[in-house]
Amino acid sequence: MTDKTELDRDTLLPLFGTGWKMADGKDALDKTFLFKDFKQAFAFMTQVAEDAEALNHHPEWSNVYRTVKVRLTTHDAGGLTGLDVDLARRMDKAAGY
Amino acid sequence: MTDKTELDRDTLLPLFGTGWKMADGKDALDKTFLFKDFKQAFAFMTQVAEDAEALNHHPEWSNVYRTVKVRLTTHDAGGLTGLDVDLARRMDKAAGY
Repeated sequence: MTDKTELDRDTLLPLFGTGWKMADGKDALDKTFLFKDFKQAFAFMTQVAEDAEALNHHPEWSNVYRTVKVRLTTHDAGGLTGLDVDLARRMDKAAGY
Repeated sequence: MTDKTELDRDTLLPLFGTGWKMADGKDALDKTFLFKDFKQAFAFMTQVAEDAEALNHHPEWSNVYRTVKVRLTTHDAGGLTGLDVDLARRMDKAAGY
């Protein structure tokens, strides 16, 4: 974790517990979600897209069949903010965590 | 283009005309789609997801806000096949080309 993160560790710890990790050398959160198949993976992405629009905060993400890799960071702030934590929680919820 | 591609150039040329390119060092087709905003980008992805399920052939793709980067290849065949050409055409159609 860099010094840039304005969030304290207590806020991030629950996310580390569900598989989120600090990105190497970047003030960002990464997670890889694995689903049963493409259909389930894209259903997750569709729910997250709605959440992202509601928050006006969007993920960087990639999809290959049943895998969805996500990176969250707040470009305007140059690092992690509460928006990333909020979107991460919503993603976990959408994935059934 | 590697020697692996079983498709002739005449089949691929129309795709090169709409912005598809052979991936560097891989027998795959790449294209970057740019939309007005995230909403439009994800609407495109939603249409393509339906097409991919219909073809049972799926893209490797990533999304950052209004940009969608796509790579098409047929893993089972170790290179490009008609399925990739079909999905590429459907993507162009979904993007309004």
